[in-house]
Amino acid sequence: MNLLILSCGTRNKIIAYFKEALAGRGKVIAADHSPLAPALYEADEAVIIPHIQDKQYLDTLLTLCKEKQIKAIFSLIDPELNLLAKHQHDFLAIDTVPIISDADKVELCFNKYALYEFLTEKQIPTPKSYLNEHQFYQDMEKGKISFPVFVKPYNGSASAQIHKAHSSDEMEDLILNGENMMIQEFMDGIEIGADVYVDLHTGKVVSIFTKEKINMRAGETDKARSFKDEQLFEFIQSVVEETGLKGMLDIDLFKVGDQYLISEINPRFGGGYPHAYGCGVSFPKMLLNNLAGKENRVQIGEYESEIYMAKFNDVMIMPAENLAKEMMVSLSPSETAPSTQT
Amino acid sequence: MNLLILSCGTRNKIIAYFKEALAGRGKVIAADHSPLAPALYEADEAVIIPHIQDKQYLDTLLTLCKEKQIKAIFSLIDPELNLLAKHQHDFLAIDTVPIISDADKVELCFNKYALYEFLTEKQIPTPKSYLNEHQFYQDMEKGKISFPVFVKPYNGSASAQIHKAHSSDEMEDLILNGENMMIQEFMDGIEIGADVYVDLHTGKVVSIFTKEKINMRAGETDKARSFKDEQLFEFIQSVVEETGLKGMLDIDLFKVGDQYLISEINPRFGGGYPHAYGCGVSFPKMLLNNLAGKENRVQIGEYESEIYMAKFNDVMIMPAENLAKEMMVSLSPSETAPSTQT
Repeated sequence: MNLLILSCGTRNKIIAYFKEALAGRGKVIAADHSPLAPALYEADEAVIIPHIQDKQYLDTLLTLCKEKQIKAIFSLIDPELNLLAKHQHDFLAIDTVPIISDADKVELCFNKYALYEFLTEKQIPTPKSYLNEHQFYQDMEKGKISFPVFVKPYNGSASAQIHKAHSSDEMEDLILNGENMMIQEFMDGIEIGADVYVDLHTGKVVSIFTKEKINMRAGETDKARSFKDEQLFEFIQSVVEETGLKGMLDIDLFKVGDQYLISEINPRFGGGYPHAYGCGVSFPKMLLNNLAGKENRVQIGEYESEIYMAKFNDVMIMPAENLAKEMMVSLSPSETAPSTQT
Repeated sequence: MNLLILSCGTRNKIIAYFKEALAGRGKVIAADHSPLAPALYEADEAVIIPHIQDKQYLDTLLTLCKEKQIKAIFSLIDPELNLLAKHQHDFLAIDTVPIISDADKVELCFNKYALYEFLTEKQIPTPKSYLNEHQFYQDMEKGKISFPVFVKPYNGSASAQIHKAHSSDEMEDLILNGENMMIQEFMDGIEIGADVYVDLHTGKVVSIFTKEKINMRAGETDKARSFKDEQLFEFIQSVVEETGLKGMLDIDLFKVGDQYLISEINPRFGGGYPHAYGCGVSFPKMLLNNLAGKENRVQIGEYESEIYMAKFNDVMIMPAENLAKEMMVSLSPSETAPSTQT
């Protein structure tokens, strides 16, 4: 049961967890376009593949899956999720399971304004959002919103581009100097992260791990504390089942007073997943169960509260002569044609 | 031979390397003011001590050194180096060796403009620096400098506050909005880092490891490549021996064309030291040698070129009930008086 993990980058721990869960029953193959991605050297096998923008990217993946008898494939970065979702059937046709939600659902997660509209329509609490200043000022006059606000790209995937604006001038400056900017209500509360697994067979939420973020660094959770709240579990369960997403999810929430609000949903492993794993919540096991044709039992909240997590740096040392070499895949003429046209 | 490592923070690897070098001959005791510092849990013993700003900080350290029979003490963060340097004799009086350079030399490293003047006077190449716009504009008229330039605090220790200015307006804005800002010539070249060990007994540079920085992230070297250049080794050796610094040093340089220039000198372990260690350059061994009364042989450049390093995240999982507790030190009345007055 070989697994292919795309854009492995610096996510060494994810590779290590899957190796542990597989326990020799198959190989973890890691792929990246850079031979300096340290997670490549954590895997059983490392392959260098073209950049995602390359025309032959999809065909390279399909050829690789066939050559390496890949049972399941998934990616650790946002820009690749759409591609996997759109071409699900190409992978299924060669007996490789892409661990990804349907394309329209992945799209919904990446368009933060569309997600806001979706959640609002379903009466799911989420911070107020505006695509332009006009709507915002109308609501401000009605006393529905006030400064400060967040200004961020509605299609961005890194928190790096999120800015706080304290005045109209600041807000308008940020909108002018950014691309695809939207205005989001500032939430004066606690930031919460949830790691969620939705069973691939039943579509039910089978695992939820929640943590309070204590400290952020370079847009990532640096320190956090696990906690449990049945009300929050029920809220997350109902939201996720409403969206129809599946597999591993990473959800950002706010708690303001007694209310939970959804901020973002990422349909992939979150950067803070090692916290959940360290508390005994093994998504790799659940995924391998699913791949073996088994359903997972519901195990929401099966972990300890008050377990703290703090990140630190390790290093991978890579002699030049051992760097992973470019994957040599032999694309046949039919495979070099865009697969969407076949 | 017990060691006390202060402000251990997230530097788990440094703790691990010293444990390996000690090989049971003594304990590595890690201290931090936050019980969530992950490196605490890598050590043989963890102690929570007051914040460095606390009045009883120094006395707590001295009491701790006596109670734990500490042979040597050092810190991993800049703000603490001055304190250790100024109070060297208090530690020596209780048979604890503070691994630190003399106070005036530590001070020189932290005042980037003073370092510029020192280096310039010794005719050691370094980027041009200005404490005010007036001097800068005079040199600009003479064609000695042009935009872009860096604007940064002359006493800052994080790269976070370094900004590039492309025009007078931008530069003046940055100076107005920052504190203690200086202007530094922009170097269009390669960024280089050097890890240096100066023998505590002989004052001679015994080890130099140099790497080209390939990629930065949040102000830290994220990926790098080891290389060797005799000319660079000689340059670093002469500069360091000119400064009179000792112990572990972290030096930032630029290479522009064929010329090396000194950018910064930090009289402590650098954040990228694990690269050197991974290539076989063990400062812990050299330090333990020195503490055992032995001189180190000169071993400059004893490592392989073309060894790449890439950082990745690991996590420490810490159940609340196991978090390190506040160090209970019994300060006698005489010890509570500021030690500088005794």
